[in-house]
Amino acid sequence: MKRIADSTVRRLSAYLRFLEESARKGVTTISSDELAKRGGTTSAQVRKDLSFFGSFGKRGLGYSVGELIDSLRDILGLGRQWNVIIVGAGKIGTALAQYEGFRRRGFLVSAVYDRDQRKIGEVVSVTGGQHVIRDIAQIERDVAREKPDIAVLTVPGEDAQGLVDRLVKAGIRAILNFAPVQLRVPNEVALRSVNMAMELESLSFALSNRANAEGADS
Amino acid sequence: MKRIADSTVRRLSAYLRFLEESARKGVTTISSDELAKRGGTTSAQVRKDLSFFGSFGKRGLGYSVGELIDSLRDILGLGRQWNVIIVGAGKIGTALAQYEGFRRRGFLVSAVYDRDQRKIGEVVSVTGGQHVIRDIAQIERDVAREKPDIAVLTVPGEDAQGLVDRLVKAGIRAILNFAPVQLRVPNEVALRSVNMAMELESLSFALSNRANAEGADS
Repeated sequence: MKRIADSTVRRLSAYLRFLEESARKGVTTISSDELAKRGGTTSAQVRKDLSFFGSFGKRGLGYSVGELIDSLRDILGLGRQWNVIIVGAGKIGTALAQYEGFRRRGFLVSAVYDRDQRKIGEVVSVTGGQHVIRDIAQIERDVAREKPDIAVLTVPGEDAQGLVDRLVKAGIRAILNFAPVQLRVPNEVALRSVNMAMELESLSFALSNRANAEGADS
Repeated sequence: MKRIADSTVRRLSAYLRFLEESARKGVTTISSDELAKRGGTTSAQVRKDLSFFGSFGKRGLGYSVGELIDSLRDILGLGRQWNVIIVGAGKIGTALAQYEGFRRRGFLVSAVYDRDQRKIGEVVSVTGGQHVIRDIAQIERDVAREKPDIAVLTVPGEDAQGLVDRLVKAGIRAILNFAPVQLRVPNEVALRSVNMAMELESLSFALSNRANAEGADS
């Protein structure tokens, strides 16, 4: 089960999302062709992706939607609840804390932190309840005691690496980073980054190069 | 200039960010080794990435930080202002509208839309000012007249594809999607997606498999 490429995991997520939609529409079996279309890939790739994890589907009959949903949820670790702490109660942090999509998949916001004395002690809404914003200074102690699974990092870039080092030392093994910096973590820590400025830059690159290419043609 | 891989563009963004930091610290030249470390890659890859776009640096002397910043900004299309519309004035949408990082790179929020009659007409803060939330019903007319460059989509999953079809038809050529669905766009439209639930799933996958692997070892 080791060394599964990140791109494979992303496709599994996409398949699961599509299967759940299909189930809601009452669909009970599905072909690898249909899954492929949704995952932006080929049916051969679908079969290969799923073959990593065992034997699914019957030749010519396709996959049972219900069974495949159960298996994929299990593979992706969605059969249980994951406690998520939000580090940084700015606009993005508090918006994420309220994101219904997280809760629906078993990701529960268990604490929200900030270092701003004006925010500490304030109440924030989170999906499914409310939390009092805690002081980042106590994060090591809390992590040791409450053992959250995942930290979502929404602090300014210049604070991010220092905080990551503290979180890792305290025992956090999975981090979702929204700070616009490249972070270093030890091998045993899983890190994913969402860099919105970088996404926009890749769009401005595409728009510019299209303009250049069109200019060159004319 | 065509057919540059997405991963290359991301590395160029990372190099640029590091170069700008270095410039702020007064650094004037930099080696491909240092850039590589920051981009999470090798110095050979750095030289290859940059060679797509011309000849930079002098053998043994490294790169001029100032010149490379100018070139990368130019390559990434950051030498100008891009007008961005936010479609969906929910929590994530309004948080993004206020994100300072966008403005600093030349991405200006030019309009904010929602379909909720209770929100339309309300004033929202955006980086550098305020906007009145507009009715999504008028989006085609506005896009035709104001020609925004990029649409940031922060609507519920079930509304996303319909809106994308309308935006593309109206002339939008670049979309940053936050809705948790796979979208279809024509080839000439650049699409990037940020799927936060999927990022968390890839972390729960990593955590689960680590647990499984450890269990198997013991």
